[in-house]
Amino acid sequence: MPLPHTMPTPLRLLSFALFTVFLIGLPIHSAHAADDAALRDEALGYFEPLPDKPVFKNENPANKEKLELGKMLYFETRLSKSNVFSCASCHNLSTGGVDNNPFSTGHKWMVGGRNAPTVLNASLHIAQFWDGRAADVEAQAQGPILADVEMGATQKLVLKRLGSIPEYVYRFGKAFPNEKEPLRYENIANAIGAFERTLLTPSRFDSFLKGDNKALTEKEKEGLRIFMNINCAGCHNGPAVGGNGYQKFGVVKKPKNMEDLGRFGVTKAEEDKNVFKIPSLRNIELTYPYFHDGRHWKLEDAVKDMALYQLGEPVSRDDVDAIVAFLKSLTGKMPDIVLPILPPSTDSTPIPDRN
Amino acid sequence: MPLPHTMPTPLRLLSFALFTVFLIGLPIHSAHAADDAALRDEALGYFEPLPDKPVFKNENPANKEKLELGKMLYFETRLSKSNVFSCASCHNLSTGGVDNNPFSTGHKWMVGGRNAPTVLNASLHIAQFWDGRAADVEAQAQGPILADVEMGATQKLVLKRLGSIPEYVYRFGKAFPNEKEPLRYENIANAIGAFERTLLTPSRFDSFLKGDNKALTEKEKEGLRIFMNINCAGCHNGPAVGGNGYQKFGVVKKPKNMEDLGRFGVTKAEEDKNVFKIPSLRNIELTYPYFHDGRHWKLEDAVKDMALYQLGEPVSRDDVDAIVAFLKSLTGKMPDIVLPILPPSTDSTPIPDRN
Repeated sequence: MPLPHTMPTPLRLLSFALFTVFLIGLPIHSAHAADDAALRDEALGYFEPLPDKPVFKNENPANKEKLELGKMLYFETRLSKSNVFSCASCHNLSTGGVDNNPFSTGHKWMVGGRNAPTVLNASLHIAQFWDGRAADVEAQAQGPILADVEMGATQKLVLKRLGSIPEYVYRFGKAFPNEKEPLRYENIANAIGAFERTLLTPSRFDSFLKGDNKALTEKEKEGLRIFMNINCAGCHNGPAVGGNGYQKFGVVKKPKNMEDLGRFGVTKAEEDKNVFKIPSLRNIELTYPYFHDGRHWKLEDAVKDMALYQLGEPVSRDDVDAIVAFLKSLTGKMPDIVLPILPPSTDSTPIPDRN
Repeated sequence: MPLPHTMPTPLRLLSFALFTVFLIGLPIHSAHAADDAALRDEALGYFEPLPDKPVFKNENPANKEKLELGKMLYFETRLSKSNVFSCASCHNLSTGGVDNNPFSTGHKWMVGGRNAPTVLNASLHIAQFWDGRAADVEAQAQGPILADVEMGATQKLVLKRLGSIPEYVYRFGKAFPNEKEPLRYENIANAIGAFERTLLTPSRFDSFLKGDNKALTEKEKEGLRIFMNINCAGCHNGPAVGGNGYQKFGVVKKPKNMEDLGRFGVTKAEEDKNVFKIPSLRNIELTYPYFHDGRHWKLEDAVKDMALYQLGEPVSRDDVDAIVAFLKSLTGKMPDIVLPILPPSTDSTPIPDRN
């Protein structure tokens, strides 16, 4: 690579120096790239990127009107007896799809028994609720509206409310065009569920899985490596980095305060005592406090507990730090939500009842 | 106007007929236009269109960062002791800037003493709250955060919470660039207030005032005419169609259940007993139930009460209908609100307290 003779000497020297650095750098760069490729290969054995588009349920196909209706109902306080709460109250889309409380506050200041899980990416889970008692987001959405300690309503009440509002009657017809009775309780949940399926939050981790080596920092990559090596990824895997199976809380060692029997309440099977759905770790940075009972506020403490109770493996402070750094790379791009405008009640709409 | 001789006879007859209709129609159209112009002239003696742009306070100038911060704080549940409530809970931007409850539910299921007024166009009012005890939206926003029955927090608590979150510290610096101590209690309210000043809702009524005769229906115009003739507009006037003065609830006749002494609580002046700020009628269709105590759910009933207690004038059912039709033309275009994404708490952020 002869340098042009017209170039003054200092510049020629600089060019030469830069070229040398480039030549020396090449193998280092290649070695890193090879490491990254190996890490990605290993990671792709456990994880996959989030789907590029929402995955809808065959029995509940999406259309534009249904998604808009679902968003409206997600923010609709008239689905609660008191008109104080909506889905968005506990699954707040400004704060990672949760309310950042150990247990959620509901009707008459009553309190739930388990930490409200995030709605973000929830449609990818094997089932819904900590104990998996609902098959999917559509089935889940039927629950809180009727729960005494949550929204405290009845099917009859919410159907009467929505049915008294012409715009809702019209919108249910558009959203469920082939149904004789579009405005029925299941369809409230179907619309909400369809909307919830759009709440996907791709993060830098997805970019890494798809081939962008620079999407993660070296520390995050180190955390990912440890996360797989010590087998966190044995449970927290798949596109949602969890959410796709059940596990006993306390595989190796029993944690304190395990009165909550978890999935046993659903199956009555002895082996399901203290078993919970493995939570997704996507956006875990935002969804504190942690575990089914919100016992930990710090992600570090949750990681340490998991290592202790699930893996029986002591982890160093540095390893916890690296794992936490990796976990924070799972914080994704939040969905852009334009607040829906809800139609006013009419003279025949049942009024709120705080009692 | 000779018709071309090449035109076949039936077409020539049709053209002639249409031309005749046009000639006859002209004066009718002109008479309507003259009526509309007169109605507009009269209306402009009472009302004015909403300002095209938000009007900010000299002491609290707007900048992009402040408006974004204000929106974030408006949706920030960490401004409440329990982390359950935000400004948006009671002043819900999906439902006309109110919660459609007679009294709002707050901390520990306690209940407020007056109906939550809408935040929409509120910056145009003479003062804030039903009794006018806060000078402007900036001053108002300081209240509910600290009120026992509303958000139940303290200045110390919310400053500690926001101050523990680096993104907020950074954003307050950007929003209040020339201040030594950008993150202080008054500035929380200043940012919220600046955001609230952007919440203007121009309606078809503004289009009419600006010259568009077709913006209102004949019935709405008739309602506007009656609204002025029977002197509703004596109080409900200005750009917000109200909000710019005080009046006794019961000028002519005392209504039932007037334990609430209103502005007397602020001024201690005998003549202010049962005096309240005249509410803005913009978006009144959406802001039921009505009056300071939410006593009426139907707009018709509120109109009848006003005629009876304020004007001492019986109004016919037809007139009430027309007035209500006019009032519904004040329902404006709601602001487009993209839900803000709030930064997560840190290890030093005080956790929620439901007690």
